[in-house]
Amino acid sequence: MCQLMGMSANVPTDARFSFTGLVERAGRTDIHRDGWGITFYQGKGAQNFRGLSAGSDCEVAQFLKTQKIKADIVVGHIRQANVGALTLENTHPFCRELWGRYFTFAHNGQIQGIFDKLSLGRFTPVGSTDSEFIFCWLMHEIEQAFPSPPDDSRALYQLIYQRLGQLHAKGVSNVLLTDGTVLIAYCSNRLQWITRRAPFGSALLKDIDLEVDFATETTENDVVTVIATQALTTNETWHSFEPNEMLVFEQGELSCQFKAEIKNID
Amino acid sequence: MCQLMGMSANVPTDARFSFTGLVERAGRTDIHRDGWGITFYQGKGAQNFRGLSAGSDCEVAQFLKTQKIKADIVVGHIRQANVGALTLENTHPFCRELWGRYFTFAHNGQIQGIFDKLSLGRFTPVGSTDSEFIFCWLMHEIEQAFPSPPDDSRALYQLIYQRLGQLHAKGVSNVLLTDGTVLIAYCSNRLQWITRRAPFGSALLKDIDLEVDFATETTENDVVTVIATQALTTNETWHSFEPNEMLVFEQGELSCQFKAEIKNID
Repeated sequence: MCQLMGMSANVPTDARFSFTGLVERAGRTDIHRDGWGITFYQGKGAQNFRGLSAGSDCEVAQFLKTQKIKADIVVGHIRQANVGALTLENTHPFCRELWGRYFTFAHNGQIQGIFDKLSLGRFTPVGSTDSEFIFCWLMHEIEQAFPSPPDDSRALYQLIYQRLGQLHAKGVSNVLLTDGTVLIAYCSNRLQWITRRAPFGSALLKDIDLEVDFATETTENDVVTVIATQALTTNETWHSFEPNEMLVFEQGELSCQFKAEIKNID
Repeated sequence: MCQLMGMSANVPTDARFSFTGLVERAGRTDIHRDGWGITFYQGKGAQNFRGLSAGSDCEVAQFLKTQKIKADIVVGHIRQANVGALTLENTHPFCRELWGRYFTFAHNGQIQGIFDKLSLGRFTPVGSTDSEFIFCWLMHEIEQAFPSPPDDSRALYQLIYQRLGQLHAKGVSNVLLTDGTVLIAYCSNRLQWITRRAPFGSALLKDIDLEVDFATETTENDVVTVIATQALTTNETWHSFEPNEMLVFEQGELSCQFKAEIKNID
């Protein structure tokens, strides 16, 4: 299994604090030692960093902790390999272009026995993970349904929710997906989120002794949502996703929520 | 205009020396200040680094000079913008997946007046550079001709040579292209290359006072080719490409050469 970290903000925001907590779990406070990756969107473009060594030891990851890279959307991942060798092409996040947008995908989970039934169309995995396979299938499903970007984004989210629900029915599949405009988070079994806004306070990382006072780093208009497999801080209240719940964040704000219908039986 | 740097090697090789020379030209010894990028292939996977500040000043580029990232193939670029704003999505190299391989493309030149005539198929530019547009067109042409990888790679190279020749006829278009297996270099007006092999000697960078003794960094079986817009060292003999010449390097060795036919008129 792996761990995920995502960020959505209404102003370009430095995600070092969350990244610092995440990579502690990549070998020090947890076992996700098999490579790591993080993508920072600035508008339509993105910078990506990845490495094959444990994030907690990796020099590139250490360097990133010193860099104030400001991003609108961030998708990060630390890997504990189960399917696919320890190679660069098997590190998350994965990226493909569709509609002139870079789609970025990170995944945590394991699904078996469905791969010979899924069609990938023009999207072909480069590596051998089930995660990249799932991503290619999802991109193909999106392109089949919407050869061009739909006017109604909600129809796109609905399709993604349905497809991720199909995977959830076959195993564990937590997902972060972005096209550079919104950040989509799907929970199969484990995902938490927090939205920070004024009045900002201090936050204390769970995995390393580091505190930041967001009041000194932000303006009163800033809205920043962080998503993680497990809460990254100890002194804040994180929300837990429900299984089969998908949230869409735009400019830091929750914009759409999808949950399984609960039928009350009288 | 921009500058290009490429490397192909038969063993994973550290390209810091060449990169150090290249980024000096990104603001210090030359004017290519408008962003930079470099992609390192390890097998089918790749690591990419890019930045919007001048490579000679950029902290990420400075950091990379300290990192022994060993790669089979490298594609680097420093930008002097003429078409397309100074944004991440307009920095080279560009990447698209085809046949389960990551294709990476960097470009130097300027071509005008052909863009409304070219079909891009499923490959859509994310940014607004003519370079990414050309790359998308080239990928579409490759996919149209070869829906799956051809058994005869030479047929693929021939197609690429023809298409790049069409661009050359319309302007200036120097190209580095790789699919992770070979490095293809096309010269429109300015490109040089050198192959280093045993017995290795010392090399002295042109743009900064730095010397390396490759004999201490290599084994006698290593073969490493470096390609650059202009020779990166002063004490070695670099070969100049001819205009409309394309070379294909595999594992450091020149494997195919394409030149315009010269018709002798008696």
